[in-house]
Amino acid sequence: MKKRSPCPIATALDIVGDKWTLLIIRDLMLGKRRFSEFADSVEAIPTNLLSERLQRLLTEGLVERRQYSAHLKRYEYFLTEKGEELLPALRELANWSHKYLRNTVHPPHPFTNEN
Amino acid sequence: MKKRSPCPIATALDIVGDKWTLLIIRDLMLGKRRFSEFADSVEAIPTNLLSERLQRLLTEGLVERRQYSAHLKRYEYFLTEKGEELLPALRELANWSHKYLRNTVHPPHPFTNEN
Repeated sequence: MKKRSPCPIATALDIVGDKWTLLIIRDLMLGKRRFSEFADSVEAIPTNLLSERLQRLLTEGLVERRQYSAHLKRYEYFLTEKGEELLPALRELANWSHKYLRNTVHPPHPFTNEN
Repeated sequence: MKKRSPCPIATALDIVGDKWTLLIIRDLMLGKRRFSEFADSVEAIPTNLLSERLQRLLTEGLVERRQYSAHLKRYEYFLTEKGEELLPALRELANWSHKYLRNTVHPPHPFTNEN
């Protein structure tokens, strides 16, 4: 990963600063596990981008995978602690969006700020 | 703005989901006001991208500008309430980054979670 500066915000965006990566992390937080489940999300990420982003998340240690089919080499993906710990940032982003952007739904669990 | 879904996270990323936009917002939160100040930040955003991102932030109502030179048509930029309210999300991102990513500096005010 090319690092632009020692700024923690810039360095976070070096990894997750694009249209898709945080949506994959969102899906993982919602319980999705498989490539086809991420690809089937309503935003319709192109599968080549999905492959590239999953590989980056594995490389950066936000995600790990476990093979669930021995002969097909298929994997299920899970967040590591490092990945899970992005929840507060996603929660703040979701609640900002619901407050200020039109036609966005109420953040579902686990993204709502309410108890 | 093309909206990918009613998901508040996806809709936020339609606006700020790239490598640069949240760095401009960071700079505004640190008190920078002018085009040249944003361009001079260490991450060195290309000026064509800076122009495009500032225009998007104006269009989306996160930023407003005030002309400070009558004959040169130069502007100072400020966050609106909508833009300022991204601070909690940036703060969480900065603190996640400082905790998990190597060689990132301690988040400065106003991004630190500490009092």
